[in-house]
Formats: sequence, structure tokens, C-alpha cells
Amino acid sequence: MTRVPGGVTAPEGYLASGVAAGIKRRGKDVALIFSQPPADCAGLLTVNRMKASSIHWAEGILRRGKARLIVANSGNANCCTGQRGSGNTTWMARWAAQQVGIKPQETFVASTGVIGRFLPKERLKKGIAAAAQHLNRRGSLSAAEAIMTTDTRPKEMALRFWVAGIPVTVGGIAKGSGMVSPHMATMLAFLTTDARVERSALRNAVKEAAAESFNRITVDGEMSTNDMVLLLANGASLAPTIRKSDRSYRDFSRALQRVCSHLAHEIVKDGEGVTRLMTVRVTGAKDRSSASCVARRVGESLLVKTMVAGRDPNWGRIAAAVGGAGVPIDPKRLTIRLGSHVVFRNGEPAHPNRKTLLTEVDRSQVQIGIDLGLGKAEAQILSSDLTEGYIRINAKYTT
Amino acid sequence: MTRVPGGVTAPEGYLASGVAAGIKRRGKDVALIFSQPPADCAGLLTVNRMKASSIHWAEGILRRGKARLIVANSGNANCCTGQRGSGNTTWMARWAAQQVGIKPQETFVASTGVIGRFLPKERLKKGIAAAAQHLNRRGSLSAAEAIMTTDTRPKEMALRFWVAGIPVTVGGIAKGSGMVSPHMATMLAFLTTDARVERSALRNAVKEAAAESFNRITVDGEMSTNDMVLLLANGASLAPTIRKSDRSYRDFSRALQRVCSHLAHEIVKDGEGVTRLMTVRVTGAKDRSSASCVARRVGESLLVKTMVAGRDPNWGRIAAAVGGAGVPIDPKRLTIRLGSHVVFRNGEPAHPNRKTLLTEVDRSQVQIGIDLGLGKAEAQILSSDLTEGYIRINAKYTT
Repeated sequence: MTRVPGGVTAPEGYLASGVAAGIKRRGKDVALIFSQPPADCAGLLTVNRMKASSIHWAEGILRRGKARLIVANSGNANCCTGQRGSGNTTWMARWAAQQVGIKPQETFVASTGVIGRFLPKERLKKGIAAAAQHLNRRGSLSAAEAIMTTDTRPKEMALRFWVAGIPVTVGGIAKGSGMVSPHMATMLAFLTTDARVERSALRNAVKEAAAESFNRITVDGEMSTNDMVLLLANGASLAPTIRKSDRSYRDFSRALQRVCSHLAHEIVKDGEGVTRLMTVRVTGAKDRSSASCVARRVGESLLVKTMVAGRDPNWGRIAAAVGGAGVPIDPKRLTIRLGSHVVFRNGEPAHPNRKTLLTEVDRSQVQIGIDLGLGKAEAQILSSDLTEGYIRINAKYTT
Repeated sequence: MTRVPGGVTAPEGYLASGVAAGIKRRGKDVALIFSQPPADCAGLLTVNRMKASSIHWAEGILRRGKARLIVANSGNANCCTGQRGSGNTTWMARWAAQQVGIKPQETFVASTGVIGRFLPKERLKKGIAAAAQHLNRRGSLSAAEAIMTTDTRPKEMALRFWVAGIPVTVGGIAKGSGMVSPHMATMLAFLTTDARVERSALRNAVKEAAAESFNRITVDGEMSTNDMVLLLANGASLAPTIRKSDRSYRDFSRALQRVCSHLAHEIVKDGEGVTRLMTVRVTGAKDRSSASCVARRVGESLLVKTMVAGRDPNWGRIAAAVGGAGVPIDPKRLTIRLGSHVVFRNGEPAHPNRKTLLTEVDRSQVQIGIDLGLGKAEAQILSSDLTEGYIRINAKYTT
């Protein structure tokens, strides 16, 4: 398996583009990703109960399982905008489909940005037309730029592997930054492959890949209204169809997993105001759900996040967060580690050397280990610190 | 019912004091509250699964229902400190009890501050002895100062009402600041009364009062390991015993409620880095628990809190937080208000005047109203903004 350049246009048969239409104050804000051959699709949508109309629109396409185009805009989420908002989503699909000569039913719409405002239709109209004109085999980076909101850099990744001697590629782009939390971060991720994959295998692969990547990151514990992970598979590699029982499925799902993990990692690293990452690894839990619960509580704790921001090895906050996770804990069986150093064991502080701990919290990725001593289940979450930068960005978002 | 000065020493028969023992870098850090006559007690303790040894000690006293002394220190939580930590709690109770000539079994111990460090016993020993020397009828403010951690000001309150023509007083002091969340904030509240109250009525009154005050506030969604609300009732007013069926019980529980609400409000107002408050009022919920869930999710949302900090009427974040609360929501029945202005109704933005909204988010207490349109249950939470000040305080807590 080798990394290749090109993001969503690395696989055969995909074109992409990104243009500036004036929806954001500056920068590109309209993206298109187009599969020349008809493609199968699978994906995951936000579980937020306030869903943008683009999410409802995507539900229909995912049910049918066929798509060729993704039209995305940043700067406006077109959420909480009622009848007029959902009319605008349908219109966006129609207009974009018309530009490339396909059906609106094959066209995903994705919007990200401020909630509760109407889309600027005239600007979008011109922007989508221009993006269609610019569609090209090297357009991934432009598309990745056009879906950015407070992201400071575009995020893309592609991997190549072989099926029966034929090269097959999986590529992706993503945006994140704020409102990033498990159960779909405030994020968009668009994935493409030139593999031909059996429908149930395709759905399974994207679900599993997201579970171990996008659903295991948090920046601020917020859940967005517009999250999407979409995967198109167009078979343009001409490699044999991948079925779930095939050996090639393992390679495919591994490639997809690695692309998603890379994008997820990039999302946290580029989170609003983030200066350093932390992984919270929980082991020894009774079951997977309590392991996740503890990992998430610690990863989202403001006091743990500010401690990481300030390089302060104040591990008592980790202990307090573990105890506050709402799952049964036995302090006497609990072990807490900062990096490889035990800080708490058998209900007592382990008297670690403070200087050593200072080194552990001064890493670009701080490792927090929590063993509950109650069973064999595990969970891990990738989180970030919380800095004054996050506050500055979010205190004046629409002003 | 009239407000009176004097906090915990406003009721008859109580002495208090606060001294500096060098546990914190500066300021008072050891407090005593002493009831001259034997007193009944009731209280609530943290539900965090990592409990400081002082919490376990308090469980025993609350079971027996009799207490005369509270010894408290700030600057060190004596939590996660194992056998030696719990030995230190017992020692603190013994030493303090000995100074005033009562039994350790009647002595509550409360500690607040950094988690995971051993108490500085020698300093505490001298401090407790000095505090016992200083016990006096006007010591409430000193005690309120001595329990402060990052609090910027002491918090105290007392109210007087009449039972059969005899004045009866309820007083209290509290500390909060960080780790403040419902289900007991990171806070200590010590309440005193010179009423004589039947045991079950006393327990009931403190539970109800906390449910509507300390359990309805949040600063950072963190749950502490050391929280306590303690109420002593010594009967020194010589007013007739209050029973639950009496009219006087209503007056007593109302006074207690008001003292607790005042202290809770002061805790949020003085929260770390707080510049303005917000109340989140949820109505029209199917049941109380889903109303609370939504109120809490909105009140704890970093994006709503930063929006309030930045006076940015970006109400879409409120909608996103409502949808992410994990309870069923019907966007078409949902109404969202900022102050008295509807911003979202019938699944659509209500096109409020932006200038009006700017006024609403510029208040010292921002009012967020959420009607779910699904039933009759309600819940309210008092929260605060999230500012760079919070980050500054918490990034360098132990360094």
C-alpha cells in the first residue's frame, strides 16, 4: 500500500474543482467532485436532531446507493432555514447536475458554515457554473480548500493498493476545525475510489472506517448539524469487483481506514486554537461503551484540555474526570499514566518525578493512559488542548 | 423574611473563624464553623466516583445525623491520596474536635484545591489550633474567605423569618469557581440555622434547596471530587421544632432555598473568567429529564458560551446544541428565543432584527429560551460565558 498524491482525484475517473463565489469573506467556497462513470455510494450523516436540509437530501441518495456528483459550499450551513432552505438544497442539486449533464438524484449537496442564514443564491449559481467549468483531474486540492471554514489548511490523502495486479486507489478530502466531536464531528469528508465494491461491503467499509477515525476524535464536544462522510466508488480502475468475503476487501477497508484516520488526525491537529494533541486510551473496562464513555469524558474535560494547553501535569484532573464519567469506577483498581509514567495506582499517587511529567505534557501529542482494572474492553480518543485561540475564534464568529 | 448580615454566624449559637496557615500561597486557608449547642445535620455529597476521603468521612456523620463542627481547608483537596489521605482526614477531625472539646464523630472535614497531593500536616495543625482560638460570633466572613480557591470574593448570605413569633435564621457561605457543574458543582456550601427541625424534614429541605440551586448551575461542566453541601440545625433560637406538616416548614424551606439560590448565583457570577451569565430555560418538554438534558447541553456548549462571551447573536449554535442533546426534538415545533425575541420558529429563522439581538447578548445576564413544543415539562440552568480568562486560570493551575 503506497501513499500517492492527488486526494479525491487520485483514483481514476474523478474530476474536482474549487472556486471563490463570495459566500465567505475570502477564499474558495464552492467545490465540485465528479465521477465520470456512474458510481455507487455509501456514507454517514450527523446524528444531530437538528439536521440541515442537505442531510435529508443525502439520506435519499444513500438509500438508492448511486451518485456521481458532490456539490459543496462553505460559509453558510443552510441549516434551520425551513422550506426556503430545503428548496435551496434541491435547487443546488439541480443546478449543479445540469452543469455536468447528470440527474439531480445523483448529486449530493453539502453545506458548512453559519447556521440559520439563507444561501446567497445568485453567488452560488455563478460559483457552481464556474466550478463546473474548472473541473479537472488535478482539482482535489482546490476542492479541499473550498470546503474549509476556520480550517487553516486543506486536508487530503490518497493510498494505492493492488487487486489482482491492478492498481486501485482510495482518496479523500476533509474539513473540520470547530464543532468537532464523536458521532460525527462538524466535518465533511468526501472519499473516492476507483474500485468496484459490492454494495453491502461498501457500506460496511465506510461505517467501520468512520467508527475508528472520525468517530474517535473531539475538539470541543460539539455536534454539528451538517456532518457528512461520503464515499463514491466508480469502478474505473477496472479491477475485479471487491466482495466482503474476498481478500481484496481487507486491503480496501484497510486503505479506506488509513485515509480516514489520516484525515481525522489532520482535523484535530488543525482544530480551532489547537497547539497540541492528546490521546486518551482507556483499557481494562468492563465493556466497550464504558471505555468510550471514560475516554470521551477525559478527552472533552475543559480542565484536562487546559492542563494540556498549559503543560501542567496536574493529573488529579484526569482522576476527577474519570470519576465523573458516569460509569462505575473502583479507585483502588484504577491506574493513570501520563506518557509511560504511572501517576496514580492502587488508590494512591504513584509519586512520579515532576520533572519527568513536565516532559510528558510538553510533547506535541500528550498520551494519557487509563486502566480501569475491571475487564478487557478498550477505547481510544484523539483530542486536543483548549487555548485562548479557540475562544478568540469563537467569540466573534458572525460579527 | 428579611436579609440579615452575618452568613453562617447570623443564626444563634454559631461561631466561625478563618486563618492563613500557608497551605495556599497567600490568603486564609483554614476555616472552622462551630455550633455551641449540639446540632442535627443533613447534607449532599458529590456523586463523582473518585471521592476524596473527606466525602467518605462525611457519609458516616450524615448517617448518624449529629454534628457540631466543620473544619475546612482550601489549597489541597486531599483526594486520590489513598490510606495516608484518609488517615489525614481522620486526624484533621480529631485534632479540630480536640481544640473545641467535642468528639471527632461530630466533626465534618472539607478540603478543596489541588487533587492528588498530601496535606501539609504541620501547617494544618497550627492553622486549626489558631482557627479554634479565633472562633467568634462574627467569624463568618473570615471562614468564607478561608474556603476560597480561585474565587475572587467570599460568598455569604443569611435570611431571618419567624416561627410562632420567634426569630429564626438561616445562613450560609460557599465557594465555587471552577469544576462547577450540576450534580454538585466543585463547591462547598456550609449552611447553619438556629431552627430546631425534625430530622426527615431537615434532610428533605436541604435536598430540595440544592436541587433548585447548586444542582442547576454550571461553569465548565466538570464534576468535582470534594463537593459538599452541609446544613447544621442547632435549635438555639428556642423556636418550636419545625415538622414537615407545619406551616413553618414552608417558611424554613423557602428561606433555605433562597440562601442556596443566592450562593449558587454568586458561584456562577464569580466563576473562573466569567464576564456574563446566561440562563437557559427549557419549556414544552415531554418530561423533566429531557428538559434538563437540553438545558444542560446548551448551558455547557462551548460554542454557545463563547458566543455569549463575544456578544455574538449567533443563535444557530443554540439550535445545533438543542439537536445534539440526545433527546428527541421536532425542529418544526421548536421555538428559540434570545431575551424576549423569537429567533427560530416552525423550522425557520424568525428574521429578528440583528440590532435588537445585539442588545440581548450584551446584557450581564443573557436569557436563552427554548420551547420544545412537545409537552409541559420545564427546566432551567444558570451558566456563564467562557472566556480567555478561564483558559489563563486553568492552563497554569499547579505550575
